[in-house]
Amino acid sequence: MKPQIKRTFSNFFFEYETPRQVLVRNKRVAVVCRIIQMGVLAYIIGWVFMYEKGYQIVDIAISSIFTKMKGVSFTNISEKERIWDAADYVFPEQGDSSFVVMTNYIATVGQKQDKCPEVGKCLSLLPSSLLAFIRHMTGRCINDTSTCEIYSWCPVEDDRKIPDPPVLLTAENYTLFIKNSITFRQFNVVRSNLVESVNQSYINTCLYHPKTDPLCPIFRLGDIVERSGLSFSEIARVGGAIGVLIDWDCNLDLSIRHCKPKYEFYGLYGTGKNEDKEEKPSLGYNFRYAKYYVENEVEKRTLMKVFGVRIDIIVHGRAGKFDIIPTLTAIGSGVGIFGVATVVCDMLLLYLVSKRDFYKNMKFKHTEIEEEVSVVFK
Amino acid sequence: MKPQIKRTFSNFFFEYETPRQVLVRNKRVAVVCRIIQMGVLAYIIGWVFMYEKGYQIVDIAISSIFTKMKGVSFTNISEKERIWDAADYVFPEQGDSSFVVMTNYIATVGQKQDKCPEVGKCLSLLPSSLLAFIRHMTGRCINDTSTCEIYSWCPVEDDRKIPDPPVLLTAENYTLFIKNSITFRQFNVVRSNLVESVNQSYINTCLYHPKTDPLCPIFRLGDIVERSGLSFSEIARVGGAIGVLIDWDCNLDLSIRHCKPKYEFYGLYGTGKNEDKEEKPSLGYNFRYAKYYVENEVEKRTLMKVFGVRIDIIVHGRAGKFDIIPTLTAIGSGVGIFGVATVVCDMLLLYLVSKRDFYKNMKFKHTEIEEEVSVVFK
Amino acid sequence: MKPQIKRTFSNFFFEYETPRQVLVRNKRVAVVCRIIQMGVLAYIIGWVFMYEKGYQIVDIAISSIFTKMKGVSFTNISEKERIWDAADYVFPEQGDSSFVVMTNYIATVGQKQDKCPEVGKCLSLLPSSLLAFIRHMTGRCINDTSTCEIYSWCPVEDDRKIPDPPVLLTAENYTLFIKNSITFRQFNVVRSNLVESVNQSYINTCLYHPKTDPLCPIFRLGDIVERSGLSFSEIARVGGAIGVLIDWDCNLDLSIRHCKPKYEFYGLYGTGKNEDKEEKPSLGYNFRYAKYYVENEVEKRTLMKVFGVRIDIIVHGRAGKFDIIPTLTAIGSGVGIFGVATVVCDMLLLYLVSKRDFYKNMKFKHTEIEEEVSVVFK
Repeated sequence: MKPQIKRTFSNFFFEYETPRQVLVRNKRVAVVCRIIQMGVLAYIIGWVFMYEKGYQIVDIAISSIFTKMKGVSFTNISEKERIWDAADYVFPEQGDSSFVVMTNYIATVGQKQDKCPEVGKCLSLLPSSLLAFIRHMTGRCINDTSTCEIYSWCPVEDDRKIPDPPVLLTAENYTLFIKNSITFRQFNVVRSNLVESVNQSYINTCLYHPKTDPLCPIFRLGDIVERSGLSFSEIARVGGAIGVLIDWDCNLDLSIRHCKPKYEFYGLYGTGKNEDKEEKPSLGYNFRYAKYYVENEVEKRTLMKVFGVRIDIIVHGRAGKFDIIPTLTAIGSGVGIFGVATVVCDMLLLYLVSKRDFYKNMKFKHTEIEEEVSVVFK
Repeated sequence: MKPQIKRTFSNFFFEYETPRQVLVRNKRVAVVCRIIQMGVLAYIIGWVFMYEKGYQIVDIAISSIFTKMKGVSFTNISEKERIWDAADYVFPEQGDSSFVVMTNYIATVGQKQDKCPEVGKCLSLLPSSLLAFIRHMTGRCINDTSTCEIYSWCPVEDDRKIPDPPVLLTAENYTLFIKNSITFRQFNVVRSNLVESVNQSYINTCLYHPKTDPLCPIFRLGDIVERSGLSFSEIARVGGAIGVLIDWDCNLDLSIRHCKPKYEFYGLYGTGKNEDKEEKPSLGYNFRYAKYYVENEVEKRTLMKVFGVRIDIIVHGRAGKFDIIPTLTAIGSGVGIFGVATVVCDMLLLYLVSKRDFYKNMKFKHTEIEEEVSVVFK
Repeated sequence: MKPQIKRTFSNFFFEYETPRQVLVRNKRVAVVCRIIQMGVLAYIIGWVFMYEKGYQIVDIAISSIFTKMKGVSFTNISEKERIWDAADYVFPEQGDSSFVVMTNYIATVGQKQDKCPEVGKCLSLLPSSLLAFIRHMTGRCINDTSTCEIYSWCPVEDDRKIPDPPVLLTAENYTLFIKNSITFRQFNVVRSNLVESVNQSYINTCLYHPKTDPLCPIFRLGDIVERSGLSFSEIARVGGAIGVLIDWDCNLDLSIRHCKPKYEFYGLYGTGKNEDKEEKPSLGYNFRYAKYYVENEVEKRTLMKVFGVRIDIIVHGRAGKFDIIPTLTAIGSGVGIFGVATVVCDMLLLYLVSKRDFYKNMKFKHTEIEEEVSVVFK
């Protein structure tokens, strides 16, 4: 190795550069500067480290939801007693995270493919291009009802009047059981909302209450609706949607037992308790479905227009754990932000203080005006 | 308090340190340096602050989707007139964010549990381990069809020929109504895609068009497919999937009225307008479902192989609002990036400029070689 | 332009400031300092650039899933042979990303609205407020069964004994075909899990295996369950849930052909192979659904309590591509973190080294105590 390279190499390792500093003795500027610096320090320690936990790596959960409704309604419509259980009123049936609980309906029994008069007012207000795809006219007029004859599932559904009070108003007392499993892949942690304190005997008797039973996974439908800020009686009549948020914010530096779900309820659409229902377009939540059957070799169906409470269960899962990399990054960017204090103080010192020329002199050293004057003063 | 501590304390508050600087008068280096600094400043102001809105905290929306298809198809197959309405052609029925609109089908009516000959070519090409779980042979051979007899729902479905043109080609004119509600929890803001300008009378008549009606929540199925780049006639025959993206990018520092959805359409799978359909494996979208019924005390079913357009509605909701914490962080890291300019300029100055030794002298001050020479010059 | 402004302007462009540095010749401090600096450099290059690919912009995929189960089960219950195909055992039928495969069931055939005695033990242990919504009593007692008479779908389901072994144990051999399409909007890239090497002939014969066939999109149900760490025979009996994660981590700076999915399996709930099933509450996965039919003008239903494997398919799609903005930001914050090294070294130098007063003198220059003494020493 050549001596030149060796020397450069040894210089590199035996010397290090550090900026030269002026210690400015100016009370006002110094106090301002220290306050700013302490503010930055408080921000870094308090916000970045304590509040945002900048020393942790974060993983977002993979989650799975399973739901089960329980409860029975009893109706007595025109002397016909009928029981409704979960298989009758939950759509879809398989326990998804998003489902509808029927609270009201308009049933059209025994529809079959035929020709019959349409129901309600004339549709001629609609653009004729759209009209063709809504009704298939036969071209004949029915004098009795003053409407046109159409090809359709007959008799045609008449949904001009929504049953009030809702047929299944007792849906308020149904209970919803939520099973939620979350997996933090990065930390190899699996949790369920049936945490340590929630055992089989507790589940058998508990009912969710934000204060007294915040971990009970069984919810009363009426409570869910009321807590979301909507009115159950109104939502039961025309339908509505509620979001149930399961919020997991876990600090895995502590014991896993502290990693618990928190339930929150949001009204997504529907009418609030004191709201004027006239002002919003497209109120409610309803859909149609058909139960098909064959009678005397003719295909028939019972068409149900279902009004109900749609429940969307959403999981926010987030876990943090100490890791050296984000800790270093947080410290590093903290040091960077520290520089802001110096920049602000320098501005005060060089532009606002009366003796600014003196300080400028201390801080800056001029090189000679070489290119223009070309004379070097030493 | 001891005088010593008091002095240290007062020193800390009355003094502050600021780096000493050399003002280098070198035209070329200075111009390069200023240009880099202005670039960095432009980047921080233009990109970090203006474009990325680094002064805002961001919240991701919780969203809920409700969909409703409207439209009627009329078919006339072997002299049998039939009407198809939404309860017949939408799966699932309850208005989910992901659903299938049937556009073509192969129906096998009146299947019952029995023994019958299988349909189509011999399956002996399959590995025998798999074969056992696809067909349950009785062991008998049917000479008429040269196939084996199997236990099955009989008659066996024959899906070798897909109806062309598709049975429900008029599905093109169905309309899709989308109701989308988003909640920004952090800002306590709830919005719906039925924004201020979308009232009941507008909804009754409008149809989405990206230029003229960008906020109308009613979409023609044919338009959705065409805008996603796929061919409706092809997709209607073999099926396909379309993604409808509802993009909310809200700046809550402005009026909430400017927080509006934007609709985009993506072909997820299916055949494009001018594409060669031979090159891709597993084309189309189809599934089977069965309508069960009891006839003469025998359980029967109508098996439908359904081809259709699957619509996946995806919501991207993001809102930003001014907050002091991200503002300070953005400024702080901006100051940090400013340091890059000085580093680059110093390299120019110390390694590339002809008078580099002179500048080196100005910038650096050597401490004595203490450990080796051990003599201290003051 | 006034000469004053002109001069300030020219000064700004022809001068630039660079901090003055002390070159400290202290072996120990210098070596420590260089090691820290090299550590920071290694962190920036190795972690931020190479591992985290900090020079890339990142896009999260929009994805769509289509699933199809294949396979047939044959049961022979009390001399009644029956075949089960996908239309019979998959819920919902339309190929969603989340679905249930029935593996066991309790069927209650021919239920109709009536009065009948309830099944099982007395429910008087429940709070009476809940009880009212679970059973609707007629008030009569049935002596034969020592239970109360209730309004219900009669006969009442008796689910006290779960069939063991599960009725459809051969479900282990069903196959699941997954079609997954992802779209990276920002990069205008569309990919499917049927990548280049997966063509039609490969799909016809392949079966997923993590080592030999990691890209085959066809999975054996038994394999999925076993790989997730659960026991198939146990899960088939009482039900359970499996998460299938499709992980796309694409580097679009390389050829698109390297952008391939990776499949992972997680047991979400259910019993593991060697676990004690007594310790966990609410085991299994089951739901009820009803097939309605009309017989002799009476509405009847077949109630099925279905136990099964719930499959949740989750897609993580992430693609990165080189972009100048994140590159500059990464470099900038890297330079910021470099400052940490200097801060640490300065602490060593000024507080721990024996000749610290000498170095302090070199590094710091004092301004005079102006406000207190008010005399200026030049």
